[in-house]
Amino acid sequence: MKRLNIGMIGAGRISRVHTPNLVNRVTGARLVALADPDLEAARALCTPLGIERVVPDYRELLQDPDIDAVFICSPTDTHVEIALAAAGAGKHIFCEKPIDQDVSRIRKVIEAVESAGVKCQVGFNRRFDRNFRRIHELVREGALGEVQLVKISSRDPQAPPVSYVVGSGGIFADMTIHDFDMAAHLSGSRITEVSAVGSCLIDPGIGEAGDVDTCIVKLRLSSGALAVIDNSRQAVYGYDQRVEVFGSKGMVAAENERPNNTTLSLASGVYEEKPLWFFLERYTEAFVQEEQAFVDACLKDEPVPISARDSLAPVLVAIAAQKSCDLGGQPVKVEE
Amino acid sequence: MKRLNIGMIGAGRISRVHTPNLVNRVTGARLVALADPDLEAARALCTPLGIERVVPDYRELLQDPDIDAVFICSPTDTHVEIALAAAGAGKHIFCEKPIDQDVSRIRKVIEAVESAGVKCQVGFNRRFDRNFRRIHELVREGALGEVQLVKISSRDPQAPPVSYVVGSGGIFADMTIHDFDMAAHLSGSRITEVSAVGSCLIDPGIGEAGDVDTCIVKLRLSSGALAVIDNSRQAVYGYDQRVEVFGSKGMVAAENERPNNTTLSLASGVYEEKPLWFFLERYTEAFVQEEQAFVDACLKDEPVPISARDSLAPVLVAIAAQKSCDLGGQPVKVEE
Amino acid sequence: MKRLNIGMIGAGRISRVHTPNLVNRVTGARLVALADPDLEAARALCTPLGIERVVPDYRELLQDPDIDAVFICSPTDTHVEIALAAAGAGKHIFCEKPIDQDVSRIRKVIEAVESAGVKCQVGFNRRFDRNFRRIHELVREGALGEVQLVKISSRDPQAPPVSYVVGSGGIFADMTIHDFDMAAHLSGSRITEVSAVGSCLIDPGIGEAGDVDTCIVKLRLSSGALAVIDNSRQAVYGYDQRVEVFGSKGMVAAENERPNNTTLSLASGVYEEKPLWFFLERYTEAFVQEEQAFVDACLKDEPVPISARDSLAPVLVAIAAQKSCDLGGQPVKVEE
Amino acid sequence: MKRLNIGMIGAGRISRVHTPNLVNRVTGARLVALADPDLEAARALCTPLGIERVVPDYRELLQDPDIDAVFICSPTDTHVEIALAAAGAGKHIFCEKPIDQDVSRIRKVIEAVESAGVKCQVGFNRRFDRNFRRIHELVREGALGEVQLVKISSRDPQAPPVSYVVGSGGIFADMTIHDFDMAAHLSGSRITEVSAVGSCLIDPGIGEAGDVDTCIVKLRLSSGALAVIDNSRQAVYGYDQRVEVFGSKGMVAAENERPNNTTLSLASGVYEEKPLWFFLERYTEAFVQEEQAFVDACLKDEPVPISARDSLAPVLVAIAAQKSCDLGGQPVKVEE
Repeated sequence: MKRLNIGMIGAGRISRVHTPNLVNRVTGARLVALADPDLEAARALCTPLGIERVVPDYRELLQDPDIDAVFICSPTDTHVEIALAAAGAGKHIFCEKPIDQDVSRIRKVIEAVESAGVKCQVGFNRRFDRNFRRIHELVREGALGEVQLVKISSRDPQAPPVSYVVGSGGIFADMTIHDFDMAAHLSGSRITEVSAVGSCLIDPGIGEAGDVDTCIVKLRLSSGALAVIDNSRQAVYGYDQRVEVFGSKGMVAAENERPNNTTLSLASGVYEEKPLWFFLERYTEAFVQEEQAFVDACLKDEPVPISARDSLAPVLVAIAAQKSCDLGGQPVKVEE
Repeated sequence: MKRLNIGMIGAGRISRVHTPNLVNRVTGARLVALADPDLEAARALCTPLGIERVVPDYRELLQDPDIDAVFICSPTDTHVEIALAAAGAGKHIFCEKPIDQDVSRIRKVIEAVESAGVKCQVGFNRRFDRNFRRIHELVREGALGEVQLVKISSRDPQAPPVSYVVGSGGIFADMTIHDFDMAAHLSGSRITEVSAVGSCLIDPGIGEAGDVDTCIVKLRLSSGALAVIDNSRQAVYGYDQRVEVFGSKGMVAAENERPNNTTLSLASGVYEEKPLWFFLERYTEAFVQEEQAFVDACLKDEPVPISARDSLAPVLVAIAAQKSCDLGGQPVKVEE
Repeated sequence: MKRLNIGMIGAGRISRVHTPNLVNRVTGARLVALADPDLEAARALCTPLGIERVVPDYRELLQDPDIDAVFICSPTDTHVEIALAAAGAGKHIFCEKPIDQDVSRIRKVIEAVESAGVKCQVGFNRRFDRNFRRIHELVREGALGEVQLVKISSRDPQAPPVSYVVGSGGIFADMTIHDFDMAAHLSGSRITEVSAVGSCLIDPGIGEAGDVDTCIVKLRLSSGALAVIDNSRQAVYGYDQRVEVFGSKGMVAAENERPNNTTLSLASGVYEEKPLWFFLERYTEAFVQEEQAFVDACLKDEPVPISARDSLAPVLVAIAAQKSCDLGGQPVKVEE
Repeated sequence: MKRLNIGMIGAGRISRVHTPNLVNRVTGARLVALADPDLEAARALCTPLGIERVVPDYRELLQDPDIDAVFICSPTDTHVEIALAAAGAGKHIFCEKPIDQDVSRIRKVIEAVESAGVKCQVGFNRRFDRNFRRIHELVREGALGEVQLVKISSRDPQAPPVSYVVGSGGIFADMTIHDFDMAAHLSGSRITEVSAVGSCLIDPGIGEAGDVDTCIVKLRLSSGALAVIDNSRQAVYGYDQRVEVFGSKGMVAAENERPNNTTLSLASGVYEEKPLWFFLERYTEAFVQEEQAFVDACLKDEPVPISARDSLAPVLVAIAAQKSCDLGGQPVKVEE
């Protein structure tokens, strides 16, 4: 059986998702080495999984002719440098989102991977969630007729520390960007105009850092349909990830995932399980599917599902949303 | 518009359901008088509803040629006497369930009403519940194919006092009888054999009174299908009334009714409303539908939905169930 | 028992809801007469309900000293004239929504009823829905903490004819107005700013009439919270009326009401019942509660739940929403 | 890290579940070889998973001192022979259910493994399902108070061929046995008495083979609680696996698992996803958990969750159920 030899770059939080999956759960993947300047962290991750080759410098992986592809799971500000080098070395790339906050730098990566003829998939993992895939399928099959409204609620279980917010690029670039991708993906349309209002209702420190923690964003789509996203940095009942698409023939809605399907009826009330706690729990299987899709695309030489070019669109929307919010909610056209 | 002039007999708990409904909610009904030896209770019920005629003796109502029908809502041990007199007076009869615990006495009423040519409807109100009506409709339409299994859970929110249990005829005659009627009604079959096991798990006093408070009853139906009923005298989360019918083409299941459709998601859990508290809350609308069906049948001279004869079948099943339980769960044929 | 003598004005669609309810279901109400220029329609409604007094001119009711209150259920463009006359005659008023499309004319009614010291309740019936009442209660009790987001989906089952749309005042004044009232009522806040986008996606005729049939409206509330409403003139699966309130301590969400609680599992899929068809079905009980609240307030001399003054606020928001939509979605402050 | 070296015996349907899981998903497992007389089938399973050692005779694995444990996934009539040999060779054993249909032969295995001091876990995989685990946890924690009623619905999506039924030992030994284990496990009680009724409603061929395809079984538990199981060989809407436990403090119920959480609302109705198709889909993760539990118990030298001795109890209940059914539903005591 053909295998894709993969080098993992980074041993941080998201690498701890991808690395065991690539070792154990992704058919056709062979993770051969991991690079991280923090060799101790790298070994802590690799040894129990039986990966012996651990190196401090990702360039070592790029020079290895046996490595077909790299996963870029290093800090965001290193993505562009590594992606350009990987493209130059002719490696296929899986790059965690976002490639960068800066549009011109993203464009450089797009050009590099396209001219090198390597694949570059960006980690919009939610597209692989079983619920959202089903919605996408129903829309594409025409089960809903013409899409008219898209509604997305996306709320985190816990506000991040202000220190994180400061470097995050703001709620639209950091959090809503997933929903921008989803709104366009599920509707099969382009986002043409955005208007956003935000408030700081959860942590005043987030407001002092110039960001908001609660927002509502309205979108116009190229088809004429409308969409709305609401975000909160803190839903005390857990990670709230629901989507609804409404069309001329009907509606499809996806509920949250729960740790099990039990209902407990007591004298004090009837209890269901809360949603799965956060993205690692909710999107566990979506990560596997995403990785599998990348490996399959590389092995079969087919297009990846979310290319570097595809990943630019939600960044442009996030920029427009930030501008709209700064202008007090005025509608802003999305740059093409 | 034609009206049915009705005399109400009894001013107790169930009369306090039927009387206001007949005054306010049942089209074609005109409640003209109420009879109860306790005139004070009678007036307390009637005056706010604008019913002026209150009499101590039900015979006065039977002698009134303007009265077309009576509702027998007096204590159970008076049902037969009143029903026989009402039939003799040519009045249509709505009789609360059960007509009697004694089969030969029920047969007397059947003969009396049939020879008098008056209508006699017995109060199996659950058949009129919107959920169970929908199930009945689906079965009758053939949506489920051949019925194979019927499952009924029927649990009260609070155990009655032991004093009530003593005179109740036992759990099968008092409580399960509704479920026997439902199993036969929903499946469109006759119950031919029953086996019942019971335990006293809630109130030892019920056991000392020779009854059980928890039971499971298996039924064989004339079609070959099987049914199972579980009863409890005390479900601490409220009145639990669920039915499921399973057939060769599929299954239909009815969930409980709740006071509203809200879900509350808190850090401590996700809460739904508990079921409606007890039969007065759960079957509020079913009582109105039941009364309407009786009034309509009288006005249009059509058969009533549950005749005195129909009401005999679940009594015979209850007797067989009690016998089975007394025999430690041996299957017992139901007398035809 | 004290009764409120009521004169009904109008025999059209909404009167056909209120009239039987007042006769049969509202405690303390006595409907004594109905006025409508179309005497035939009036009698068709009144005779089966036993209301004998039918007059062509509402002024006759206002002159009757035995009449305590009137229900104004005539065409919208007659509301102000009748309300002013009723206030002048010292009658309490229940007026269907809206009092008028014109703010200055509404203010005249406010002044008239306040100076006459009569009660004037406006028909925002949804506040009395069992689900939305429960949400309101939870918010008021503080179960959700500080309200941060309100989400309302409100979609009709069928687009009205273009002829209706032409005289409706536009989607915001005709349809979203209920949701504006609800957003403010449920959050306990005032709406301070609105931005609206709309599209014509269902019936091009609605677009030609200068209106939209699909819209998303964002609101800023005086508390700092945000709200979003989506409306569609046509949800093919039925009347879609859902509300969600999200706060610092949790979220409460209300699902649609269905004709029954059954689920049908077939080889072809698992089916639930569709939502109740339209507002007459969905809000049947809410209408009764609304009428009861009015009658109670009059009999006990307490404030009505939605006064003429209260009813002005959503009109002002609707005007701002229309302006925002005409300006392509720019945020517009709501006039105080 | 310590690893458990495992030899797999059998390359059939259930081995195709366990083998890839042991290779990819179970921490601490190292599958080193597979034995099956059908070497072609064995290689088809092993080669893509990178297992190189494939042998025709399981005895070869038992002679290998490097192998710590075996999975017995061969045909049922070979289980006892292999288990005895494995115990004799000092290997830990995971044996698919049932060890055998014959009680005396099962007892031989119990004695053999106990005297050899090896672990022997039997494959009652459902105990590891996330829903049933949650129910077990709630019961054990006392959240439901004293258990009073247990209700299990267990229905297959498709009747097996009559040829399978003939060798299956009958519905109680083949299908209900899982539910007997579950009723005892979830309630924390022993089953003391059983009464069973069955019908042949789906495939007359099953009746001709002397078996039933639809049954209801009532159980008495050692605690005094009651339980009821319903089984059908064919639920056309899919694999129906629901459990409900009712106690003095409340009830917990587990719903089916679905492929995703979407709801589709169309003009023709509101659709949910059907349950996952069959046990391979429904219990995918339960198999992994079961395997992990075995590997953990071996590595840590702790008791396995379901020993050979534990597996005897449901066999004895199945025998009693068959006897009861043959006697027309008479209650039968379970042999201890």
